[in-house]
Amino acid sequence: MSKRQILLLSSSNVHGYSYLEYAAKDIKDFLNKNKVTDVVFIPYALKDYDGYLKKVKNVFTTWGFNMTGIHESKSPSDTVKSAQSVFVGGGNTFLLLKTLYDNKLIELIRERVILEGMPYMGTSAGTNVATKSIHTTNDMPIVYPPSFIALNLVPFNINPHYLDTDPNSKHKGETREERILQYLEEDGADTVLGLREGGTLLVDGNQIILKGLTKARLFVKGTSPQEIDVETDLSYLLKK
Amino acid sequence: MSKRQILLLSSSNVHGYSYLEYAAKDIKDFLNKNKVTDVVFIPYALKDYDGYLKKVKNVFTTWGFNMTGIHESKSPSDTVKSAQSVFVGGGNTFLLLKTLYDNKLIELIRERVILEGMPYMGTSAGTNVATKSIHTTNDMPIVYPPSFIALNLVPFNINPHYLDTDPNSKHKGETREERILQYLEEDGADTVLGLREGGTLLVDGNQIILKGLTKARLFVKGTSPQEIDVETDLSYLLKK
Ligand SMILES: [Ca+2]
Ligand SMILES: [Ca+2]
Repeated sequence: MSKRQILLLSSSNVHGYSYLEYAAKDIKDFLNKNKVTDVVFIPYALKDYDGYLKKVKNVFTTWGFNMTGIHESKSPSDTVKSAQSVFVGGGNTFLLLKTLYDNKLIELIRERVILEGMPYMGTSAGTNVATKSIHTTNDMPIVYPPSFIALNLVPFNINPHYLDTDPNSKHKGETREERILQYLEEDGADTVLGLREGGTLLVDGNQIILKGLTKARLFVKGTSPQEIDVETDLSYLLKK
Repeated sequence: MSKRQILLLSSSNVHGYSYLEYAAKDIKDFLNKNKVTDVVFIPYALKDYDGYLKKVKNVFTTWGFNMTGIHESKSPSDTVKSAQSVFVGGGNTFLLLKTLYDNKLIELIRERVILEGMPYMGTSAGTNVATKSIHTTNDMPIVYPPSFIALNLVPFNINPHYLDTDPNSKHKGETREERILQYLEEDGADTVLGLREGGTLLVDGNQIILKGLTKARLFVKGTSPQEIDVETDLSYLLKK
């Protein structure tokens, strides 16, 4: 039985909701179930750590949780070692992954989540880095990380902010689906879950359930893409 | 006086035109001015080299030029050494740059263009790799190249397929402008030319002119983004 306790959001902002509001129940349930009172926020995907912490802390405080920023302590690794739980915010995935490597946090976070069951929450870029690799981020490669391999808390890829093809678009850049199918042509690529905004993945031990407001789109090498309904059990993806 | 002869397209496909049709006059003028009869096509941004060559060759043949694929010879570097001119097609920028590195073509193409004046044409990903680095590609990072540094035929960045923010969009991922401004916060980032689909950059020695069907948007660190009209002289960007 794996100890994994993971909640991965496609996005923090969803049309018609305030910041993180659409996921409030899922986040609170996740933290309460795991008896978490204190959350360490990791703001590395943006430049303004203090401003970012203030914004997220404001929401978590309203919900009754304590929050500190990983950048507020001298030792990020000591902070992770003693954290009850981490929340990894969105922004730029390359910047986030590079900063996690620079601070030597990749192995440490992975061990704490996989071996010790430290609850991990991520949104957008924070969801990308929780997967096998960042090969399916939508972000611009504004910095060069030492690898695209990520935390590998789940053994497949996620594309957050998944966007359906607009048949009326006059834009000729690749559609999201085309981009993901190009990735699946590469060696080592196998499964990509397209999480639409409002979609959330809950990993509880050996079980994965799609949560949130909207269907997801699943791409598996060699098969046609398929639509996944909310509350679908996707536990078989852990065996990939 | 620099020998540079470069034509960089934002895209091959533009709404309302057949493949490369919108740029036919600019491409033919560019090749004729440089007395080019034979073009080497570099299809590395896609997987199906033969299929891609066939599609592009069909267009260039109609225009009266001979075309061969770099993959048709045993030695890509010998082919570049003897090429009259190269055309680098679009697709995935990471795959293209990695394959150029794998085939040891980066320094070679750069020398031939900068020192010998070999005419270089690129579109989309082929435009990204012609610039300082691929930090401003829109593509998904489906493979890990040994560096994001590119051919550096021009000393700034280009964002091809530049897309204006849609005020009616319900999608909450970063806008293109937000992504580029995030890049400009990084060390070493200075100037990004957002080339809208249908936009083309002509580099003739020390002169750069915006060509094509549409305005471009120029982002320079520390200043507000500005709109650039077609036929504007952008030669000052070569001094960056
Ligand atoms: Ca992002
Ligand atoms: Ca592309």
